[in-house]
This record gives sequence, structure tokens and C-alpha cells, in this order.
Amino acid sequence: MLQLKDKYQSVRSRSEQICTSLETEDYVVQPVVDVSPPKWHLGHTSWFFETFILIPFVKDYKPYNTSYPFVFNSYYESFGKKIIRTDRGNLSRPTVEDIYSYRHHVDTAMTQLLSDTPSAEIQTLTILGLNHEEQHQELLATDIKYILGHNPLFPPYEELVNQPINDNSEMGVIHVEEGMYNIGYKGNKFCFDNELNNHDVFLAAFTISKALVTNQQYIEFIEDNGYQRHELWHAEGLDWVKNNLISAPLYWHQINNNWHYYSSRGIRKIELNEPVTHISYYEAAAYAAWKGMRLPTEFEWEAASPRFQWGQRWEWTNSAYLPYPGYVREAGAIGEYNGKFMVNQMVLRGASIVTPPGHSRSTYRNFFHPHLQWQYTGIRLAQSGE
Amino acid sequence: MLQLKDKYQSVRSRSEQICTSLETEDYVVQPVVDVSPPKWHLGHTSWFFETFILIPFVKDYKPYNTSYPFVFNSYYESFGKKIIRTDRGNLSRPTVEDIYSYRHHVDTAMTQLLSDTPSAEIQTLTILGLNHEEQHQELLATDIKYILGHNPLFPPYEELVNQPINDNSEMGVIHVEEGMYNIGYKGNKFCFDNELNNHDVFLAAFTISKALVTNQQYIEFIEDNGYQRHELWHAEGLDWVKNNLISAPLYWHQINNNWHYYSSRGIRKIELNEPVTHISYYEAAAYAAWKGMRLPTEFEWEAASPRFQWGQRWEWTNSAYLPYPGYVREAGAIGEYNGKFMVNQMVLRGASIVTPPGHSRSTYRNFFHPHLQWQYTGIRLAQSGE
Amino acid sequence: MLQLKDKYQSVRSRSEQICTSLETEDYVVQPVVDVSPPKWHLGHTSWFFETFILIPFVKDYKPYNTSYPFVFNSYYESFGKKIIRTDRGNLSRPTVEDIYSYRHHVDTAMTQLLSDTPSAEIQTLTILGLNHEEQHQELLATDIKYILGHNPLFPPYEELVNQPINDNSEMGVIHVEEGMYNIGYKGNKFCFDNELNNHDVFLAAFTISKALVTNQQYIEFIEDNGYQRHELWHAEGLDWVKNNLISAPLYWHQINNNWHYYSSRGIRKIELNEPVTHISYYEAAAYAAWKGMRLPTEFEWEAASPRFQWGQRWEWTNSAYLPYPGYVREAGAIGEYNGKFMVNQMVLRGASIVTPPGHSRSTYRNFFHPHLQWQYTGIRLAQSGE
Amino acid sequence: MLQLKDKYQSVRSRSEQICTSLETEDYVVQPVVDVSPPKWHLGHTSWFFETFILIPFVKDYKPYNTSYPFVFNSYYESFGKKIIRTDRGNLSRPTVEDIYSYRHHVDTAMTQLLSDTPSAEIQTLTILGLNHEEQHQELLATDIKYILGHNPLFPPYEELVNQPINDNSEMGVIHVEEGMYNIGYKGNKFCFDNELNNHDVFLAAFTISKALVTNQQYIEFIEDNGYQRHELWHAEGLDWVKNNLISAPLYWHQINNNWHYYSSRGIRKIELNEPVTHISYYEAAAYAAWKGMRLPTEFEWEAASPRFQWGQRWEWTNSAYLPYPGYVREAGAIGEYNGKFMVNQMVLRGASIVTPPGHSRSTYRNFFHPHLQWQYTGIRLAQSGE
Repeated sequence: MLQLKDKYQSVRSRSEQICTSLETEDYVVQPVVDVSPPKWHLGHTSWFFETFILIPFVKDYKPYNTSYPFVFNSYYESFGKKIIRTDRGNLSRPTVEDIYSYRHHVDTAMTQLLSDTPSAEIQTLTILGLNHEEQHQELLATDIKYILGHNPLFPPYEELVNQPINDNSEMGVIHVEEGMYNIGYKGNKFCFDNELNNHDVFLAAFTISKALVTNQQYIEFIEDNGYQRHELWHAEGLDWVKNNLISAPLYWHQINNNWHYYSSRGIRKIELNEPVTHISYYEAAAYAAWKGMRLPTEFEWEAASPRFQWGQRWEWTNSAYLPYPGYVREAGAIGEYNGKFMVNQMVLRGASIVTPPGHSRSTYRNFFHPHLQWQYTGIRLAQSGE
Repeated sequence: MLQLKDKYQSVRSRSEQICTSLETEDYVVQPVVDVSPPKWHLGHTSWFFETFILIPFVKDYKPYNTSYPFVFNSYYESFGKKIIRTDRGNLSRPTVEDIYSYRHHVDTAMTQLLSDTPSAEIQTLTILGLNHEEQHQELLATDIKYILGHNPLFPPYEELVNQPINDNSEMGVIHVEEGMYNIGYKGNKFCFDNELNNHDVFLAAFTISKALVTNQQYIEFIEDNGYQRHELWHAEGLDWVKNNLISAPLYWHQINNNWHYYSSRGIRKIELNEPVTHISYYEAAAYAAWKGMRLPTEFEWEAASPRFQWGQRWEWTNSAYLPYPGYVREAGAIGEYNGKFMVNQMVLRGASIVTPPGHSRSTYRNFFHPHLQWQYTGIRLAQSGE
Repeated sequence: MLQLKDKYQSVRSRSEQICTSLETEDYVVQPVVDVSPPKWHLGHTSWFFETFILIPFVKDYKPYNTSYPFVFNSYYESFGKKIIRTDRGNLSRPTVEDIYSYRHHVDTAMTQLLSDTPSAEIQTLTILGLNHEEQHQELLATDIKYILGHNPLFPPYEELVNQPINDNSEMGVIHVEEGMYNIGYKGNKFCFDNELNNHDVFLAAFTISKALVTNQQYIEFIEDNGYQRHELWHAEGLDWVKNNLISAPLYWHQINNNWHYYSSRGIRKIELNEPVTHISYYEAAAYAAWKGMRLPTEFEWEAASPRFQWGQRWEWTNSAYLPYPGYVREAGAIGEYNGKFMVNQMVLRGASIVTPPGHSRSTYRNFFHPHLQWQYTGIRLAQSGE
Repeated sequence: MLQLKDKYQSVRSRSEQICTSLETEDYVVQPVVDVSPPKWHLGHTSWFFETFILIPFVKDYKPYNTSYPFVFNSYYESFGKKIIRTDRGNLSRPTVEDIYSYRHHVDTAMTQLLSDTPSAEIQTLTILGLNHEEQHQELLATDIKYILGHNPLFPPYEELVNQPINDNSEMGVIHVEEGMYNIGYKGNKFCFDNELNNHDVFLAAFTISKALVTNQQYIEFIEDNGYQRHELWHAEGLDWVKNNLISAPLYWHQINNNWHYYSSRGIRKIELNEPVTHISYYEAAAYAAWKGMRLPTEFEWEAASPRFQWGQRWEWTNSAYLPYPGYVREAGAIGEYNGKFMVNQMVLRGASIVTPPGHSRSTYRNFFHPHLQWQYTGIRLAQSGE
């Protein structure tokens, strides 16, 4: 199991690498409910290995601290009481140092376990735990940006991004013919349960853009009063715009009549040719309506994906997050992973510059509530017909 | 156009017939935001004809009262300011008598217009207006039940229901084979824009129950601690249960250890063999999970619908309310009818005992937010595989 | 007891007289939590006599309806469950007609009881009940104005006001010397328990205006940016202004650059020389600060009251509503009348044009939360020193 | 000015001393709106000296960071925009280290300024700044307890308390005769503007307890169902109890049927003879009602204060926080110190074990909203009559 142990160490150390440039204080705060404190992510991912592997499978394993499950359980009802989500940013203890010790404690036990030949079940759970940690790595990156980008000092930081980014410069559209397309994961490596069953979907003909919508193009929408034109919006989207006084993507600031945004380099002028990002589903859908087009469904996206470049931004689709035919939720706590979130969320496809390398695939289904902007989200346009 | 005029008169008088047994006070109140005061429904449906037909097409038409558009516009942003939805129950004026005069004023003008040979456009809009009024007739029935069923005096009332109700006694399941199924409206009569385009969907094999779940069966779920077993629920469903202390369908009361419910005959013992109703999507999905089954998708429902009896209860499906391939929103205010609601809602299929006769068809797509219980909603179970 | 019976009949009929020009629908609604539906006032005042007198003292009295206590109890915890206050406007039943029957039922029993020689205790409770009803008459007048004045049709109505109103034209100030002043009720007629004990208060010298602040004067404050100048406001007052976008007294509307207000005659131009009314404590205090003056304390007001005209508007004082020395709350439910409200409210002194005749006296302590505008409230200025 | 410089250094270093045992993370969080992060207190008190003294009076003073005023302004509207109070715990930057540097920067400049002979105005402002810092020292102590006492790990910490605490063992009551009593500050040292003018108040005879109510006595109230007996409570107090499920003072936990509380030594058994603390005004008033007594007014408290021991707990009075006769708010930003809070708060008299030594006097008026428990608050009982 040398390979799995190496993989374990590499994934685990990447989480800490993401936090390299943080000050201790940056690990602690939770400016909005959707953002978790970085130290919470570091603790929660360790709790996952402790809870699902070490405690049930390692006879003499000694839990690091019996209060930690209460602090680091995220949403697993099967494991009893947990702090409410909005309280994560109210906890100064365990300290950052404590949590790194906790990680070390868990890593020592896991490394030892993986040094022998662990059972297939342990291997499966370990792989799940690593994929889980990679998902949190992406959230870590997103949350750190939110924490620092909403600080009035707008501090720069080191961001761990994938290289190289494609240049989003391919023009034109892809024509996809009517027909039956195979959807979902079909292989023998890891996938999440929401990518199953692999099944066929019949699609009508459509076209889909090769490039993502750029900042320049999005500014045209803003300047054409896109946020004020009710006919472009879902009713709930319009309420969201009005109640939250939304007039641009997250992190955008108008300074001296020029659009700027916050990035890891601090506040700077917007790059006009970059794909627009940090927009909600409502904004993506309104932009598409303004162009007389629409967002692709997740099935269209997957069917066409071999023919365009992706991986730079999570792409909002017009599909709600629902189970595939034959989807079966696993028994026990592991079964809480995906199925219970399959309502009121929209699917995103692709990956972003902060998705861990190797974590993405064309069948991957990400999902968020339609009003959220804090992810690295983008827009690809589609249209029905040939 | 004798036929259309007759249809107009028949639909319009049915709305008033629904209100026959109301006291003046019952027309006024709005106990929760989703329920509108009956007098508002009566005014709003008249405003629809006045706004979309009489004012634009009848040269010398004199609007009944220039303040009414502000009061009776529901959600049409194209027509400017409107009272906020939660304020509908705060308005004592216009009085019920005023609103009946308003209806009479509109009916006189409409009847005259339809007595001649109106243009195709007017005919189309009139048919839309009548279907719109029929939708409000169903809401009227639902809202009246809510208003009286939440009054501490629990008054009985006359309910206008369809006869005869099928007996829900067919046992067993229907097997539907894998294959391509045609979905959506295909005909030359009226349908809503959300039923288009007619298109093909490829479905995997499934089975679907002939009968709806009964009160008796639902009580078994309650008694098996269904509301407490987190593993059966969507995460947001569980929050809804906890925050609202939900432990039974709407209108149910436990009196001396026996379940009773409020109906048009007042509080009475539950009929055990009747289909359970007034449950949210969350409850429907949790019940299905408890049975080891699931809700059908709207496509499965439509494909199988010729083979079971339906029409007694709106049936929750596991499909989110989204546009069909090729869906095009109409231009102008009429385009606000459906498309802007296509997010965060679940589709219901079928019809209920208070759906106006002739208003239902197997392609009809009703939709509500997943937490709502006040509609006449029921559960039909499905399962993947043959 | 002829006199008490006559008084009973006269007070009770006055409540109904206030409602003469209402439509049935006007009796039902509750546009904000502080406003109760007129039919609720009519029922609640009857419930008071039924609960405190008829049921305990009249052996064969048959309560009108055993569900009514749940509906018409206001805040008496001693009598068990009651509908929550915000639900008053959600109840269409009992109907207005039912409530008038209820009043008649109670009146018949009370009249018969008072025709004989009732005990001193019954007499005392009857007098309390009548004073209670007079308080609700004032609320009725205030609430009716709110209900109609917030209706987009702004209907006029008949208002039962006291005549004649003094002309508020006396200029200048009254000088009150330092000294001991007697405060609180001292007599043998009815007073509320919060007017006791009669006691001495030592006051420093002060001056107090003879006239109330007029609309004209208040407009000067508005035009001098009074609502924007933070230094004039209590911190909580400024929050209230900002959160509620307050920029003028309640019922004021700026139409074509002229201030108008809603009154019983509908929307009309403001009378500049009338005392300003429908302002919160925060506004009264900010206005006084703008003039370099202050509001009088309730003790200053009472001490100076023989020397100025009052009765036209409730006057905000700078005194919090607290018990007088030696105040003793009565035992039982009657003890819930005043004492439990003695926190977070400010005292108003005087009376208004809708206070029932004979209900006012210079020791009367009215009280409201500092943000409320819906009462007929006014401003009298004071200043420390001779 | 050696004395003032020494005083400056001693007060400033005491703030830092209070934080000695904190971890960096403890400085950051804000678990409820009333609690500020310790680092915010350390920054805000420095901002006070920078803003009111260094910038206006020291010609070549260079502000430490031009973004800090936005971060560290508490409620001074005169100085423009400020972060909203609930956001204090969302800011990871400036870091704790930054803030200590900021303190050092301010201290260097202030020390130099005080080394020469500063103007009387500067001296006055410095003294105000030091008293302001002492108030924040008390808040620091209170907030640190809240932060750690609401952490699921319940960590102990070093608490900077005054020694020795009196033993609260004197029994019996003090009789105070009817008469004129002098109230407010009368001297030539520092006092806050709310302690002025010194004036006479006429008081009726009363008795007041020598000792504070103990934990033992308070437990009797709990065990006699004090929290359930509505007749003991203000109406708003009862709402507060029910909405927040209050059943004991803050920090109390029932473990194995014994009352424990959180203190600087962690969770431990309650000391029965200690004065009860961390109770709201509502609880204090309900306890007094349960004993058939009442809380003293602030005037009674001050008049009797030479005759009992105090200083162990802030004592709720039955006086609302209002201006004294002749109170004049200062011009400019300094005038925002006290006057604008004089509504909806109750006065506390005395001092607590965490009040800085030398900061207390018998005329000192502390004030909080009636529902707050997080201060070291206690109960002294009074009664009218001789």
C-alpha cells in the first residue's frame, strides 16, 4: 500500500500548504455562514479519518481529544450533537497549534495503518477521506479569499493555483447533434456516489460556446442595466439582487469609475479578457437571457465536454442537483455524504483553478445554492437547435 | 364566439360559487404569506382581463378604479409598483362588495367583446385568462381551507369538489420498460408554455404504484418515528421539521390519542383509507425513503400515467421545475407567467379534488416550494428497475 | 346603582359609536403588530366584564362561547393560553355580527347585575372595566386611523373627537420655581394603580412652553436636516430612523413639494398651525435637542400643568415608566394591569382629541415604547433653570 | 505632569496585563454582538488617544495606519464610517501583533506629549481617555470570560481581580429616613458627565439590605419555580425567558443534579455563599418580587451607600438611565459619550471584582439593557417604608 500511503501524505500536506501564508488570526474567523474558519477545515478533515477509520478499525487507537467530535463534525447526524454551523467562527479553542497537533496525531496513526496492508474497506474509506479532504482544500482556498477579501485592509496572500490556465481564447460554438449520450462515471477508479449510475440520456440538438464569458462581456451586461432589467431574472433572483443590493460579481469594486477586484495580489484593475467569476446562478442565468441564450444542462455539458477546454472555472448549469437513475444512498453515516443535499441546489460542472490537481473529471457534479457567489464560478452559454 | 363567451361566463361564475358560504370577514385575512385573501383572488383575476385585454384592445374601455392595479397586480414587474405580497391581508378596502362590482364591470365589458368576433389574439388571451382564473380557483379552495382551518373555532364550510373521487383501491405496481417516451403537450388546444416543447425522454425501467399512500400507511410512518429518523430526510427537510416542530401533515390534530383532521365538515376523525394529503415534498420524500422506495420523476409519472388513476391529489415528483428543451419565454408581461419561477421548486403532477373540471391533463406541470403543505398534495411511490 | 348602570351603558355604546362608519372589512385587519383589529377591541372589552365580573360573581351566568377567552384575552397570563398578538388579524371568525351579539349578551347580564345593588367589589371592578374600555376606545380611534391611513385608497371616515380643541395659540413659557411638588392621584374617585402613591418630589427650577410645537415648526426641523444630524438623536433613535427610512411624522406625504397628511377627511394639505402629531419619542427628543431644549419630566409636567392648556395631544415626557414610591401591584389577574409593563417604555402625559371625555386627569400616566408613532403624540418643550 | 504620565503608563499596561493568559485566537472572536474581540478593545482604546489627542494636538504626529479609524471607531458618528458592530469578530487583520505595535506607537507619542507640560485641555482629554480605557478593561474581563466560558472546552484562564473581596456576610437591613439627599458627583476630580449635575432628591423612607443575594438564595428561587411564575416577571422579561429558554444565571450548568458554573478556574461547583452574579435586570426584578420586595432606585442606593459594603458586584437598580437635572451634553464628538444612550437602559450602581482599582465611586452610573447577563451583576433588595 505504498502508493496509498504516499497519496495520503501528499494530500494531507497540501492542505497545510494552502495555509502557508496565513496569520494565526486568519484561521479563526467566519465572516458569513457559508465560509468556515480555515482551522475548522483542518480539524474537520482530520476528524473524518479519525471517525470513519481510526476509531472503528484500529483497536488501540486513542482519540486525540474527546471534545473534538462535537467541534469538528460538520453535518453527520449519525454522530450526535455538533456545534451549530454559525458558531464555527466563535470558537477560539482549539488553537491553531492544537489543531496541527491533532493532524499530526491522526497522520501518525493513519500512516502506520497504511504501512501494513489495510483491508479493502479501509482502503476505500481512505480514498474517500482523501477525496473529501481535496474538496475541503478547494473550500479552504475559497474561504481564505473571502476572509481576506472582506477585510478592510485587503491583504494580499499566496494562493495555491493550478498551472497553466488555458487562455479561454477559442472562439465560436460547438454543434452537438440530437442523440443518446452516456452520462455518469464509468470506470474503476474513485468517484462520488452522485456520479452513479452511469446511464443514457437522450438529448436534442444544441450548440455550446467554446469559451467562457469574459469580464469585458460581463461589464457590457452591467452597463446595459442588466441588474435592473427584471425580465432577465428569475423572480427569486430579482429579490436577491434587490435585498442584497447586488450590482456586480463578488469582490468587484468601482474605484474612480473603473472596475477593480480583490485577488490574491490585493485590489487591482480587472483583467478584461479573463473569464468572469464569483457570480451566482441567478447572475449567470440573467446574463444568458440577456444574450438570448441559456445555460447548458449538466447532461449537455458532459456530452460536449470532450470538445472544449474546461477546468478554469466551475460552470453553472441549468440542472438542479438530483439523483441519477438507480442512485442508492449508502447505509450509515457515509450515506449522509451526498444524497441529503439533493434539493434546492444547482449543479456546477468542470473545475476551478483552486481544485486540487487530479481531483477533477468530466462526470464530477459540484452543487451550490443558486444565490452563492463565493465560489470560482463562471458562465458557458448554450442554445437549443443545430 | 358564442362558445368562448359561454366558457367565460361559466368560469367566472365558478369563482364566485366557490365563495358562496364565506362570511365577509373570511374574504379579508391572510394568515400566512402563501395564502391570499379570497377577495384578492377575485380582484386579481379580474385585473388580469382588464390589464391584458380590455385596456389594450377596447378603445373606450374605462378602468373601474385607477388604484386597483396597485392592489391587484400579483407579480408582473412589467406593470410597475404593486403592494408587497405580505400586505394583501392588511387591506380592508376595496371591500368585498366593491370587488364584486369590479368583477361585474369587467364581465360586462368582456361579454360584449366576446359577443362580436374578437381577433385571434384576444381569443388567445381570453383563453389564457380563463386558465389563469381556474388556477386561482384552486388556490381559492386551498386558501379558504387554510383560513378556516387555522381559526380556533374551526368552522365548517361548503367545499366545491369534483365528483366522483376514484377509490384509490387498486393494488400493486405498474412495470414500465426502458425506452423513449414522449413528454409534454402535443395537441392544438390550450396548454401552458411550461408544457412545451413536446420532446422525447429516454427512461430506464421502473415500477410505479397504482394507488396513492393512505392515511393509515402514513400513520405507520409517524409511529415508526419517521419524523425523528434523520437518515430519511433531506438536510433542509430536517431543518424544516425541527424549526417548525412538524410531526404530522397540515390540519392534523391528535385528540385523545386519535388522529383527527380539519376538513370542510370541521374537525373529525381521520379516514384511514383516504390518500394522505397536505404534506410537503420533504415529507413525501422521507416517507418514500422509509419504504425503501422513491418518488417518480415527472417524466416517469407522465409516461406511466395512462396506466393508473389520477386526479385525486397533486402528486409530488422528484423533478425540479426546469424548462423543457426549446422552451421559449414569451415577450412582454405574458412572459412573466412561468419561466421566472423555474428555480428552487419541485414539480407536482396530476390534479386534486379542487382542481376545476376540465383544467387537468397528464402534461400539466404544477410546482411549489418543497416545504409547502397547504396544497392537496399526495404520494405515489416508484422504484428503479423492472 | 342607577348612576353606574347609566355610565355603563353610555361607555359601552360609545365604543360602538366609534365604529359607525366602518365597513365590515375594516373591523378585521391588523396591518402592524401594535394595531389590533377593531372587532378584537370590541370583543376584548366584553371579555373583560365577562371574565372579571360575570363569571366569578353571577351564579347562573352562561358564557357566550367557550372559545372566546382564547381569542379575546390580551395579555393576562393568569387566564391561560391566548392567541399570539400577531395573530389577531388572521382571524375571520368570530364575525363582526357575532361580536356584536357577544357584546349584547354581556351587556344584558351586566345591566341586570347593576340594576340591583351590586357589592362594592363588583362596583369597583365595573368602574375598572369601564376605564379599561375607555382606554380601548382611544386605541380603537388610533387603530382605525392606522388601518385606513395605510390603505392605498386613503378612505375618509367619521372620527369621534372631543370638542372644542384649544387653539394652541398662547405664546411664551411658564417659570416654575425650585421646590417640593405633590405628584400622583389624591382623591377618592377612580385612578389607575400606576398613579399611586401620591408622593412629594423635589424639583429644580425650570421653564416649560405654554404651546405645543406646531407642524410649521416641525417642518423647519425637517428642512434643517434634522433627521440627518446624528448629534441630535439617541443612538437607538438614529438606528430607528435609518432602518425604517423615517423622514417625517407618520401619515405625512410629500406631494408636489408640499407636505400633506392623511386625516379622517382623507389626504389633505397640512395645517401649519396645528400641533405636530404622530411622532415617536425619538423624534420629540431630537426636535427638543435641535432647539437647545429638552422634554419635561413627567413630574415637571404635572407640577406645571395647572398653568397651561393641555388635552389636545399626548405629550412625550423624558421620564421612563417606573413605579411610584410605595407602588403595590394588586394580587391576581388584576395585578397584571400596569406593573408588568414598567420597563423600556416612556411616559406620556395629557390626553388627546380621541381620549374619551371624562377619562383624562393631570395625574394620568400613559406609556409607549419610544419608537411608536401611531398615537396622537405631541411635543412640549422645557428647559432647566429659571 | 509626571503624575499623569505615570498614570497613563500604569493604566495602559494594565489593559495588556488582563490579556496575559490569552492565546492569539482568543483575541479574535465575537460570539455575540455585545461581546467585542479583545484585540478590538486594545485597538479601540488606542484609537481614542490618537483621535482625540494626538491628531488634533500633536503637529507632526503620523497616524499609525489610515485604515484603522474605520476598524476601531466604536460609535462616534462624528468621525464618519465605521465597521458595523457585528463585524468586529469577522476581522482577522490587523493581527494581534499589529495592534500591540499600534499601542506602542500611540504610547510613545503620548508619553512624549505628557513628558512636557501639556495644556489643560490635553490633560482633561487624557484623563477622559484613561477612564475610558478603564471602562474597556472591565469589558475586556467580561468579554474574555464570555469567549472562554462559551467554548466547549471550557478553558481556565488567569483573571485580574481586585483583592480582597468583602465577605458579604453582614446580615439585616439599613433604615433610611424620609428626607432630602444629595445625589451626583460633587468634587474636583474626574467624573463622567452623566454624574452631573449634583442635585437634591427627596426620598420617602425605605430599608435596604446590607448583603447581596447569594447563590444559595437564588437557587431557592429557581427551585420554587421562579422562572415559570409569570406574576413575578415584567411582560418583556417573560418573553425573554421563554424565547431564550432561560432557567438560570449565565454560565450555570446543571451536572448530575448539582449546579456548577464556569469561572476562571474552569467548570466547578457553585459556591453557595457567594453573591449570585450574571443575571439580567429581569431576573433581579423577578427575584425581588418573589421575596415581596423590590430593587432600590439609584437615588436610594446612593443615599444609603455609605452604610453598606459594596464593590463586589454591579447592582441592578430600578432606575432607568436618564439625564440628571441640568445635564448638558458636551459639544462635538466627546458629547457622544453618554447622552445618546439615555433610553431603554437600566442603571447599575457599585462596581465589580473586575472594575479597575480606583475607577469606582458611589456616584458612578453604569447602564445596560435589561436583558443582558454577561456583566458581573448582582441583587440588593429594598423595601418602601420604615
